[in-house]
Amino acid sequence: MSHVNKSAHPFDKGRLEALLSRRFFYAPAFEIYGGVAGLYDYGPSGSTLQANIIAEWRKHFIVEESMLELDTTIMTPAPVFETSGHVARFADWMVKDVKTGDVIRADHLVKNVLEARLAGDKEARGQAAAPAKEDEKDKKKKKSKTAKAAAVQLADDVAKSYEVTLAQLDNFSGAELGELCRKFNIRNPDTDNEVTEPQEFNLMFASSIGPTGQHPGYLRPETAQGHFLNFSRLLDYNNGRVPFASAQIGRSFRNEISPRAGLLRVREFTMAEIEHFVDPQNKSHPRFKEMRDVVLVLLDRHVQSSGNTTLIKMSIGEAVEKGIIANETLAYFMARIYLFLLKIGINPDRLRFRQHMSNEMAHYATDCWDAEIQNSTGWTECVGCADRAAYDLTVHSARTGHPLVVREALKEPIVTEKEVPEFNKKALGKTFKQDAGVLQKHVESLDEAALSKLKSELAEGSTTIIIDGKTFEIAPDLLRVERKTFKQSIREYTPNVIEPSFGLGRILYTLLEHTYWSREQDVERGVLSLPPVVAPTKVLIVPLSAKEEFDPLVQEVSSKLRRAGIFSRVDDSNTSIGKRYARNDELGTPYGVTIDFASVQNRTMTIRERDTMDQRIGSIDEVIAIVTDLVEGNIDWTEACQRLPAYDGVQAIES
Amino acid sequence: MSHVNKSAHPFDKGRLEALLSRRFFYAPAFEIYGGVAGLYDYGPSGSTLQANIIAEWRKHFIVEESMLELDTTIMTPAPVFETSGHVARFADWMVKDVKTGDVIRADHLVKNVLEARLAGDKEARGQAAAPAKEDEKDKKKKKSKTAKAAAVQLADDVAKSYEVTLAQLDNFSGAELGELCRKFNIRNPDTDNEVTEPQEFNLMFASSIGPTGQHPGYLRPETAQGHFLNFSRLLDYNNGRVPFASAQIGRSFRNEISPRAGLLRVREFTMAEIEHFVDPQNKSHPRFKEMRDVVLVLLDRHVQSSGNTTLIKMSIGEAVEKGIIANETLAYFMARIYLFLLKIGINPDRLRFRQHMSNEMAHYATDCWDAEIQNSTGWTECVGCADRAAYDLTVHSARTGHPLVVREALKEPIVTEKEVPEFNKKALGKTFKQDAGVLQKHVESLDEAALSKLKSELAEGSTTIIIDGKTFEIAPDLLRVERKTFKQSIREYTPNVIEPSFGLGRILYTLLEHTYWSREQDVERGVLSLPPVVAPTKVLIVPLSAKEEFDPLVQEVSSKLRRAGIFSRVDDSNTSIGKRYARNDELGTPYGVTIDFASVQNRTMTIRERDTMDQRIGSIDEVIAIVTDLVEGNIDWTEACQRLPAYDGVQAIES
Repeated sequence: MSHVNKSAHPFDKGRLEALLSRRFFYAPAFEIYGGVAGLYDYGPSGSTLQANIIAEWRKHFIVEESMLELDTTIMTPAPVFETSGHVARFADWMVKDVKTGDVIRADHLVKNVLEARLAGDKEARGQAAAPAKEDEKDKKKKKSKTAKAAAVQLADDVAKSYEVTLAQLDNFSGAELGELCRKFNIRNPDTDNEVTEPQEFNLMFASSIGPTGQHPGYLRPETAQGHFLNFSRLLDYNNGRVPFASAQIGRSFRNEISPRAGLLRVREFTMAEIEHFVDPQNKSHPRFKEMRDVVLVLLDRHVQSSGNTTLIKMSIGEAVEKGIIANETLAYFMARIYLFLLKIGINPDRLRFRQHMSNEMAHYATDCWDAEIQNSTGWTECVGCADRAAYDLTVHSARTGHPLVVREALKEPIVTEKEVPEFNKKALGKTFKQDAGVLQKHVESLDEAALSKLKSELAEGSTTIIIDGKTFEIAPDLLRVERKTFKQSIREYTPNVIEPSFGLGRILYTLLEHTYWSREQDVERGVLSLPPVVAPTKVLIVPLSAKEEFDPLVQEVSSKLRRAGIFSRVDDSNTSIGKRYARNDELGTPYGVTIDFASVQNRTMTIRERDTMDQRIGSIDEVIAIVTDLVEGNIDWTEACQRLPAYDGVQAIES
Repeated sequence: MSHVNKSAHPFDKGRLEALLSRRFFYAPAFEIYGGVAGLYDYGPSGSTLQANIIAEWRKHFIVEESMLELDTTIMTPAPVFETSGHVARFADWMVKDVKTGDVIRADHLVKNVLEARLAGDKEARGQAAAPAKEDEKDKKKKKSKTAKAAAVQLADDVAKSYEVTLAQLDNFSGAELGELCRKFNIRNPDTDNEVTEPQEFNLMFASSIGPTGQHPGYLRPETAQGHFLNFSRLLDYNNGRVPFASAQIGRSFRNEISPRAGLLRVREFTMAEIEHFVDPQNKSHPRFKEMRDVVLVLLDRHVQSSGNTTLIKMSIGEAVEKGIIANETLAYFMARIYLFLLKIGINPDRLRFRQHMSNEMAHYATDCWDAEIQNSTGWTECVGCADRAAYDLTVHSARTGHPLVVREALKEPIVTEKEVPEFNKKALGKTFKQDAGVLQKHVESLDEAALSKLKSELAEGSTTIIIDGKTFEIAPDLLRVERKTFKQSIREYTPNVIEPSFGLGRILYTLLEHTYWSREQDVERGVLSLPPVVAPTKVLIVPLSAKEEFDPLVQEVSSKLRRAGIFSRVDDSNTSIGKRYARNDELGTPYGVTIDFASVQNRTMTIRERDTMDQRIGSIDEVIAIVTDLVEGNIDWTEACQRLPAYDGVQAIES
């Protein structure tokens, strides 16, 4: 599929949103109750699109790489998140309007206000209409709904300092955000009131398990902990071998402070997460060579820290060699993420990988690259790819006393020698009575050098040791120090974790933006050019009219497609064929077949392709075979056209 | 697949549970933290089994019947559940131990204690070993872990009253349960202490939405409300037509009082729910004729109310005719549920449909049949099939003011005539001044008969009306009553809802019990005879040894199976082939293929069938084609054996 915008019209977010609501891709949850910010329901088109993305994800990752799937609970007892650090640190900074008490997320406030002032500055300089450069941080283009600034020109150095601040925004602490508010005189744009100092707000939803309220619990903010807690069972399932990956698709919850950006920032969402467990001493990947030449667009942390956003294009092989991406496994997954996103229809020209800056990183991560996809709000993190190192397994193991380690049989045992003290316990007890234990403990804690020294002293006769002012006279018959050989045949280690984590709602919304356009002749005629692999319905069956003589053929085509595994829908509604096709263009249905009087007489059927509106004709069985090949990706429309003649009938004039 | 127990050994729940834990079908969530009752994680085998059951469910219901899929949020603002009645009534009765404060669900306490006493009675009468009759309420067989009673013989009438109580148990209110505790001297079996009066405990998990805590919310206890709140959008999506069904697969939560029965009673679970919206005046189903002859085992409410549990076998056609099942749509779904359960491997001899008794029914239901499946704990409700009538749509519409109705164009408009008063408003005002409104309102509220009488009085001249002691003298020029014709071309109504609701965890666990058996020669060698359609892995690929020369063939077979859409796993672990096959019998993998030296030399491969341990041989491509046919259900093993000769090699001796 070509990603050139087919539309003669500029992208119109309002029209897309109207389409998505009209065709019930999604809608605010509890709409008839007035809705609640950050909660959305997916309708038939949206939930089927999501189910298809998930099915493809399962194929691309779980099946292709034999990952171990998991399905763990959302409700989680508090001790788990105390250990993982989420109770203490999974928080955002919020400020309150000093007069109204309205709550605003601090970093969003700074961003909205500074962006609005920069936009006002550009307007004053007469640059408002200038297109932003492709490689510039796109957030600047966005016009905030709440923060509007007058067209006031800023001093050059002020404008520059705003830009630097915005490029580093994800890097600031709460105190620093508060300082920025004072320094730049940032107020609540809705009221022009000052705001309070930033306070932390924990983003986990709290609840309580059981009838007596004695078990506090949280709804998980990520599925990851469920993987870590089951590590021993997973390792066992994998016959004790590392590396392996577990995978989970499921709902998570974050009680966002003031969600506003549609599906891009929500309080309940479906994630797909992979935890790839790997030897910390060997982060190579057995299939890296298959991905080595995949070229990604990168924005690394050094570039960002210097306050700019220059992108580089580089193969992952080169990026690993140059140390830009830390290791093969991280890079391998970045390439696999890239290929997955392309497969479902994301425009590769609007996809980049941005490395987290050090303060921005989650508390558990040592390195992290986000797959960011550009949409009308700017660059949006849609997939995180983090190296969590051994953080989680280590803290859970320490808290529970349950070892979360790999025990690996060494091919060559490691042989070591060391000095070992051996006591004549009976004589020791007789000589030192209750102090014998103190002496023994002291000697056992000595290092190699001290033991050697003791050994040579004892070789020459009795020696003296002073512990806490008490003197022990030790004769050679009480203690011997001997050199012994040790053989270690098992290596025990805590594996590291590479975590690709997908926000499916963000991907889904961005995909809708990337595939939306409208017909040249009529801006109202929207089309979603979803690839067949994810399109909610693959084939629309359109009987020319409600005449009963069409029914047996509709049944036949419908059941033949079902047997071929192709999901179709019948539209026998009481409107023109053109209108029915237009509705299905909005639903992203790639193919339509029409049953008319010729079908009844000659068993022929026409097929229409969504993007070109081309129509072809063939026998019913031929068309079914071709549409099956099209949907399964065996052929494209050009090849289909070679097998089917053009249809020049008049039945479905569309324009 | 035959459902005769293949095992020479009696069912051993302990061994099955050990297998399910060892092979990580599921395990207590947060196990390394000590676990929390009623929360379970599914491992690779369990989650893939669940995903396959869901995929089949989607095909059987959503695709086959063109249902509208939904994915709505779990987190729900409180007003929704206030309206639906869940805040007031979604509760169980609990009692507390008067000394320890331990919390017990009241009906479970009564059940466990009475069942234990009856078991003790049977033992005393020397009947303990007698097998319970097939059609008897199986719960009696269960030995409760907590309630053990001595082998004490009961008076005949006491035993009878226990049995009658148990058969009606689901029918009792909280006060009645309290009375039973006193009457039968029921105490906490763990401590022998008395218990308190039953109190209600609401089963919804509570939380709070947003940073200021002003929006109380609940985790949904069912997915249904998400369907009802979106009714208008769904109806619109379906072009305004009824009947149609929405469907949703998702997580729900119930804060059970003291969950103990493994996957059968949990606090977080995956449901699949259908809401079929239908005209209340016409609950026929267009495809009922396809299901008419399906025979179900029924236990209706009259039989239960009379205190017994006699089952009847009847076609749904007959059951609808006789009024046992209320309508065609309810019966149609019962038959479809039955066929689905058989398809995934439930034993039809251990499946019945039980009608709810009147007090037992959920507050929103007017009729309800549960598909109950027998397992080692008795008969367990796995699917509910309820007629919720217009309850939910009516209450949400009343609360929000948003009409949740169908507006249906009538084929024949309904023509009615009625008397209509027409005022001469100017003259009326002049005559009666400020009282004119009172008069007008009064006249407009008159019924047809009163208007007719007024009309004939006016035909004869002025007349008098007295309102609240005030007399109005009305002349014919002030008011005329005329007969008018009205034409109604739209019928507006609130649809009824038929709701099949599936508890997937319960079905999954029961399926594992139904398919578990062990080899005659060794009770430790467990097998799960899962049908290929739901088996987590379809084909195991077993290289004879770790020799590198097998690698290219393993890759080839693995990728050919992947291309054919067959999920396989390689087991190249360092154990004997027999042990690897035994492990996969426990995982329910129906087929295994072995790659050995003959494969390298002759490109042949053996295939092994799980249940019979039969081995056959053929060329690699032939075996792949046959295993594909087997997994897709095109052929069975007998047919496969006709195409492939028996293998009489020695490579995999198993017994």
